[in-house]
Amino acid sequence: MTKLPVGFIGLNGRGRGLLNQVLAMDDIDVKVICDKVPERLELAKKACEDAGKPADATLIDEEVAARSDIEAVIIPSSWNDHIPLAIMAMRSGKYAAIEVGPAQSVDQCFDLVRTYEATKVPCMLLENCCYGEAEMTVLNMIKKGLFGEVVHCAGGYQHDLRILGSQYDEGKERAYHYMHRNAELYPTHELGPIMSFLNINRGNRMLSLTATASKARGLKEYVRKNLPADHPLQNMEWRLGDIVTTVIKCAGGETIQLTHDTTLPRPYSRGGRVDGTQGIWMEDKNAAYIEGRREGESWEPFENFKAEYGHPLWKAYYSEGVRGGHGGMDYLVLRAFLHAVRRQIAPPIDAYDTAAMMSISCLSEKSILLGSMPVEIPDFTNGRWIKREPAPDSIFALDKVDEALFENLESL
Amino acid sequence: MTKLPVGFIGLNGRGRGLLNQVLAMDDIDVKVICDKVPERLELAKKACEDAGKPADATLIDEEVAARSDIEAVIIPSSWNDHIPLAIMAMRSGKYAAIEVGPAQSVDQCFDLVRTYEATKVPCMLLENCCYGEAEMTVLNMIKKGLFGEVVHCAGGYQHDLRILGSQYDEGKERAYHYMHRNAELYPTHELGPIMSFLNINRGNRMLSLTATASKARGLKEYVRKNLPADHPLQNMEWRLGDIVTTVIKCAGGETIQLTHDTTLPRPYSRGGRVDGTQGIWMEDKNAAYIEGRREGESWEPFENFKAEYGHPLWKAYYSEGVRGGHGGMDYLVLRAFLHAVRRQIAPPIDAYDTAAMMSISCLSEKSILLGSMPVEIPDFTNGRWIKREPAPDSIFALDKVDEALFENLESL
Repeated sequence: MTKLPVGFIGLNGRGRGLLNQVLAMDDIDVKVICDKVPERLELAKKACEDAGKPADATLIDEEVAARSDIEAVIIPSSWNDHIPLAIMAMRSGKYAAIEVGPAQSVDQCFDLVRTYEATKVPCMLLENCCYGEAEMTVLNMIKKGLFGEVVHCAGGYQHDLRILGSQYDEGKERAYHYMHRNAELYPTHELGPIMSFLNINRGNRMLSLTATASKARGLKEYVRKNLPADHPLQNMEWRLGDIVTTVIKCAGGETIQLTHDTTLPRPYSRGGRVDGTQGIWMEDKNAAYIEGRREGESWEPFENFKAEYGHPLWKAYYSEGVRGGHGGMDYLVLRAFLHAVRRQIAPPIDAYDTAAMMSISCLSEKSILLGSMPVEIPDFTNGRWIKREPAPDSIFALDKVDEALFENLESL
Repeated sequence: MTKLPVGFIGLNGRGRGLLNQVLAMDDIDVKVICDKVPERLELAKKACEDAGKPADATLIDEEVAARSDIEAVIIPSSWNDHIPLAIMAMRSGKYAAIEVGPAQSVDQCFDLVRTYEATKVPCMLLENCCYGEAEMTVLNMIKKGLFGEVVHCAGGYQHDLRILGSQYDEGKERAYHYMHRNAELYPTHELGPIMSFLNINRGNRMLSLTATASKARGLKEYVRKNLPADHPLQNMEWRLGDIVTTVIKCAGGETIQLTHDTTLPRPYSRGGRVDGTQGIWMEDKNAAYIEGRREGESWEPFENFKAEYGHPLWKAYYSEGVRGGHGGMDYLVLRAFLHAVRRQIAPPIDAYDTAAMMSISCLSEKSILLGSMPVEIPDFTNGRWIKREPAPDSIFALDKVDEALFENLESL
């Protein structure tokens, strides 16, 4: 098999992590890497060399887009650059994969979709949690009808990131967003899987949302206790509320509740929950209850469901060997993208999904600004969601993606 | 000690349960019982006789209010009658205790408060969950500063009541509400404790809310599977969404998230959660995480906190002997009310608290009707919440209630 030539833009810690995972793939050739910070570029260059796969290195992102010898660009850049860089790559005919993060405006999300429609070049949000083992097990349980009709889903990004929130050197942009934006800043880890559960953009869509933010106290107290008394952050008033609660209403009548919780002490959880007419899953219980499987109203360990309803992709993955970061999800989401690039087909998470998912940040910001007013969520598909078939190889089209990704896994 | 003379209005199953608990108290004399349904009245009359404490029985509630030989009326009537009967009792100079349930209008909540202000006769919502062992342990943990500054609370009434939702004979009024009202119909079990956590009406208040309802599918599927094909409910379109999510913003900057979930299969949970700058409690984990108590980010079993921070009231209660329904909560809430009556002092949950808690149902209904628009929550105290001291013997005034309730417990 010929090697698939790709480029990278954005080589912060996360970017280098993804780079290393791609360098480990025998069928992928990293031709060019780019970062505007020389020190980061140097580290990435060394990683390529250490892997025995030296790559060209540049400080100028346009040079990556201009390359005629690559078919895709992987963009783990800073949040502000995700969509602009993806658009640049797509305009130059290259599939774009962007790391997760919030959009900076709804207009920007429209630009992404319009670029896709004008160029026909796809882009994909690398939402690794769509490929999480628990999430895919739940997706499979939904498809098999275990929950009956799903009416509600919930999830959160609940991760104590106070240390990142208080670091604002170059490349630590999260702190800047926390200082300036009161919003659901990181919705995609839980919303990506929920969109697959609810067939969003493929027979369903998100109609409107409200968002409400608590006061911002976590970082203030953290800085007071952990940084020197004369540190400039001692006087900072962060705009981001500690807990941001967002409630989304869908065309199919389902509701989605999201929690952004990253500036208070707590153990990590994405707090997944699915409620249907026949049962409920709760990530925080590590259990589900499906009516009729047991006597009485008791939670059943999720392990049982993994064993019985584990997603075929994950079953194959276990036999091939789970690898890469974040429990194996990173590898799967990268392979799903690269698989689409090689076959020149639509990626499982496409421009419409990317725009819808990323727009939630800006829309929640607007709702909070307006005192939790309901805000419409644009229909980025312009009505096509109603009849739109599941994309080929989509995680939303379970059978097809299985086949394709098995093939992929077997080729390694 | 002289026996405290009381009356009862409303003797459905729950009413008779409370009656039996009061009949078991040596220092209380049930003088008169009332229900408009003769069969229910007969059952209650027999319960009094079986307890060796025969009581007068009447079908006419005005006759209870007219009695000159009682000091309080306990009202576990149907939801629609709670506030009107309480007002009637208060106007005739009798302390009123009402069972939990939704208000039928915000105006009705104002009437309750105005009646209290005009007559100076108190009323109290019998919110037993304010006296739950877990809730009081958490309250104690908050007062002791374990959570740091509290910024967010959550809870739900998550209880599979499909069987009640599909029964609509006399006295099974829940089904009628489910047919006709799309609202957070039962907020008080979780909101009562949360109001104590956040000092609502005593230095803080609830400012506004949004509410969003999912589609209504649970009862439809339940009826289809469990009732005869020609049953009239087969054609029912319930208005109550299966999951109703309400988000409240408080004057102190805290947020509260409520979930009403009673028409889908699931194990029971009130889903309590408290987030503060130093830690988090999650009822569904049966655990808390308080920064610095342990290495790493791991949940600590709630049993540890019960042992270390169990509320003094519950410690005394254990040594005296936990009794009565719902794990002992019912007894405590009844005693708190009766204690206030005997001493002619303010009850721990007063007219302002009752109005605020019960109004959430109507306000959530309005928000849902208006597409999740934010709706203001009235300040029933007319500004007094700002400087209002914790009421004597309030569960909000921890030390005082302890002393008073210990005294009470010791007298038994």
